[in-house]
Amino acid sequence: MPQTIINLSTRGAGIYEFTDQAAHFVARTGMEEGLLTVFVRHTSCSLLIQENADPDVKRDLDQFFKRLVPHSDDPSMRWIVHTAEGPDDMPAHIKAALTQVSIGIPVGEGRLMLGTWQGLYLFEHRDRPHRREIVLHLGG
Amino acid sequence: MPQTIINLSTRGAGIYEFTDQAAHFVARTGMEEGLLTVFVRHTSCSLLIQENADPDVKRDLDQFFKRLVPHSDDPSMRWIVHTAEGPDDMPAHIKAALTQVSIGIPVGEGRLMLGTWQGLYLFEHRDRPHRREIVLHLGG
Amino acid sequence: MPQTIINLSTRGAGIYEFTDQAAHFVARTGMEEGLLTVFVRHTSCSLLIQENADPDVKRDLDQFFKRLVPHSDDPSMRWIVHTAEGPDDMPAHIKAALTQVSIGIPVGEGRLMLGTWQGLYLFEHRDRPHRREIVLHLGG
Repeated sequence: MPQTIINLSTRGAGIYEFTDQAAHFVARTGMEEGLLTVFVRHTSCSLLIQENADPDVKRDLDQFFKRLVPHSDDPSMRWIVHTAEGPDDMPAHIKAALTQVSIGIPVGEGRLMLGTWQGLYLFEHRDRPHRREIVLHLGG
Repeated sequence: MPQTIINLSTRGAGIYEFTDQAAHFVARTGMEEGLLTVFVRHTSCSLLIQENADPDVKRDLDQFFKRLVPHSDDPSMRWIVHTAEGPDDMPAHIKAALTQVSIGIPVGEGRLMLGTWQGLYLFEHRDRPHRREIVLHLGG
Repeated sequence: MPQTIINLSTRGAGIYEFTDQAAHFVARTGMEEGLLTVFVRHTSCSLLIQENADPDVKRDLDQFFKRLVPHSDDPSMRWIVHTAEGPDDMPAHIKAALTQVSIGIPVGEGRLMLGTWQGLYLFEHRDRPHRREIVLHLGG
């Protein structure tokens, strides 16, 4: 049951691909079949599998979530109580709840069984740069 | 670690049950305990576990997501940039991000441990028919 | 592959922590490394990993989902067809679809690899108290 923690440095809110890091981890284990579980150890960023072909998809996704969950200083969000950590903090928790904290990806013939257009992403919801920890666990 | 890929043909946007196919796969392996991971190899459809009793639940779910994320030719969605693949494409990616790309279901006594009312569904977000690949992986 | 079902009694809509119960289950197995899968056997409640420091985060999360998906007797939700089980039922299914029915958490050195601020929660979407079953499965 190989396991590792990878660190991603984000430059603020946005979508950051790490498919290659996950694929290299799987390759190094030499396992032919299994299940890769990806788990993010934070509550203000999350995980996505999305299209890796057109960068506009990432931008539009980011925009959608920013419009659905505006910062807490937006007039429509005045009901938010948890504001002590900044206007981007509670919306970050909400966006994390709306997406995924863990994703399981089957491994076959030694490779992640992602579809042709699928990439694996960290979705950063905080405005400022952060260092994020992601656990990779390859099990049976 | 038995593994298979099943194909579902969708007839356009909507919710398609495949609980039986997953249950048959588990039964054929003869495994008594384990974890079934279901993974969809696309970024414009997704997975759901939902009530399988009243078909209105599926219709209402579909309606909710269509209202939350209208097609990109809707006046409220004019900010969408990724429109080259049609007005239903970027909303499909967004709806996929809001739901799940993988689901883990424990297996006990040789059967999926779903609750009484739970069914397993593919949620198709594109308007036109598609052939969708779903990986089933039964691990320990 | 240790497995158990835990029961949580909810007192109506809200967010209920059960991190301790999951951690105790892992500790009792004596397993050093593995993957804990948490699976909820219902379609009108769901799972969350969220911040366990400030209780306002839970309240704000709950509020957000109630505003995004009002009860079906709200004027904005008149399009809902599935109303026979009460005005909180169909919104409960929708909120369950927007969050997660299963979460995988890696285990290392005999402990859940949660981040410092992460807690594991049941998100109850029905108004009245319910008894909810959650499967815990610890695999390789």
